[in-house]
Amino acid sequence: MTTPRIAVILCGSGRGDGSEITEAVSTLVHLSKAGATYRCFALNSPQHHVINHATGQVEEGQTRNQMVEAARISRGEISDLATLNASDFDAVIFPGGFGAAKNLCTFALNGAECSVQPQVDRVVKAFHAAGKPIGLICIAPVIGARVLGRASGGPGVNVTVGKDTGVGQAIASWGSTPTEKCVTEVCIDGQHKVVSTPAYMFEAKPHEVFEGIGNLVTEVIGLCKR
Amino acid sequence: MTTPRIAVILCGSGRGDGSEITEAVSTLVHLSKAGATYRCFALNSPQHHVINHATGQVEEGQTRNQMVEAARISRGEISDLATLNASDFDAVIFPGGFGAAKNLCTFALNGAECSVQPQVDRVVKAFHAAGKPIGLICIAPVIGARVLGRASGGPGVNVTVGKDTGVGQAIASWGSTPTEKCVTEVCIDGQHKVVSTPAYMFEAKPHEVFEGIGNLVTEVIGLCKR
Repeated sequence: MTTPRIAVILCGSGRGDGSEITEAVSTLVHLSKAGATYRCFALNSPQHHVINHATGQVEEGQTRNQMVEAARISRGEISDLATLNASDFDAVIFPGGFGAAKNLCTFALNGAECSVQPQVDRVVKAFHAAGKPIGLICIAPVIGARVLGRASGGPGVNVTVGKDTGVGQAIASWGSTPTEKCVTEVCIDGQHKVVSTPAYMFEAKPHEVFEGIGNLVTEVIGLCKR
Repeated sequence: MTTPRIAVILCGSGRGDGSEITEAVSTLVHLSKAGATYRCFALNSPQHHVINHATGQVEEGQTRNQMVEAARISRGEISDLATLNASDFDAVIFPGGFGAAKNLCTFALNGAECSVQPQVDRVVKAFHAAGKPIGLICIAPVIGARVLGRASGGPGVNVTVGKDTGVGQAIASWGSTPTEKCVTEVCIDGQHKVVSTPAYMFEAKPHEVFEGIGNLVTEVIGLCKR
């Protein structure tokens, strides 16, 4: 196979209101190490809110743009998610962080009744329809489980949830299947090419999260075909 | 030896105005993997400025606090640098990023005439005086070279510079010694227990930066004694 080309979807920079930074960096380091090329994408839209990460409190009246903040992680190389064409890539990976559940979908706000942002919905469906792998980290599996669940007219997919039974119940309610794995493990839905790992769904150590995401990247690349 | 305790000095979150994120995360992942404990510190002070990382431009009129932004990298666990007592730790590590040269010292603004922020100066001198290792990544070696240079009354230390001869000339002018190493290598000044690696002083790939910082962490821990 030629060099795999991977799209990475970010949503800000910081666990409380954007992409979880250790998860995002672990993804890029492992893609780089595997010899893949990658491009980071984010919505050119405001974050749901801004969290002071030292206190955990909402910074009232502040606003930050998801794409501009995500560029902090990717060292300036970032594209608008609206321009992402699945035909230009072999796979897509979504790191976690509360931003994935506040900016990319509304799971943190509406739980099982959540909606998925339209561009995110489009991208997930496009990669799935093309038979290309989708990697989902931490809380991001709710996006795949929602978009591809039987309740949304999809086939239903198997994904990780950590130990949060509320998340698992929501996933089941959408006609997808929650699967418990530990932080260094991945869940592989080979039929639908969906790979997931729980990462900081657990109170894990950074090197454990790094290892689990390394396993996810290996499996995602292994499912790529060109 | 018992578990090494490492202080990590951050200065915001993002290469343009704070800590370089991949370098900071690589440091924490490798410390975690090595079984060390760590605590992140930052100045409870405004950043020199705020850079829009998607455009590279200064965001006029914006201000962000170094400690609050650094907490994005450390998942909320952060302490004021003013409270750091070298007797509580076995070593200190400074990741790079322009923040290290704008917020922790003024090298990005004043070059060879730069000053070092007083708390940073205090911390470097305290670890050195106690015979405890100091790890310096990317542009952060200028801090150690300045504080411990013969021009400042110190012994002079050997540190990495990447390939930027201007940085090397400044280091030499302070009575320290610039040493060229590649991205995955470290410079070890065994006499003064100063370990450095160039990281993103080169146009490097993320996994190369990760590897170089892994070597730095190994050497820093190896020089710890209790």
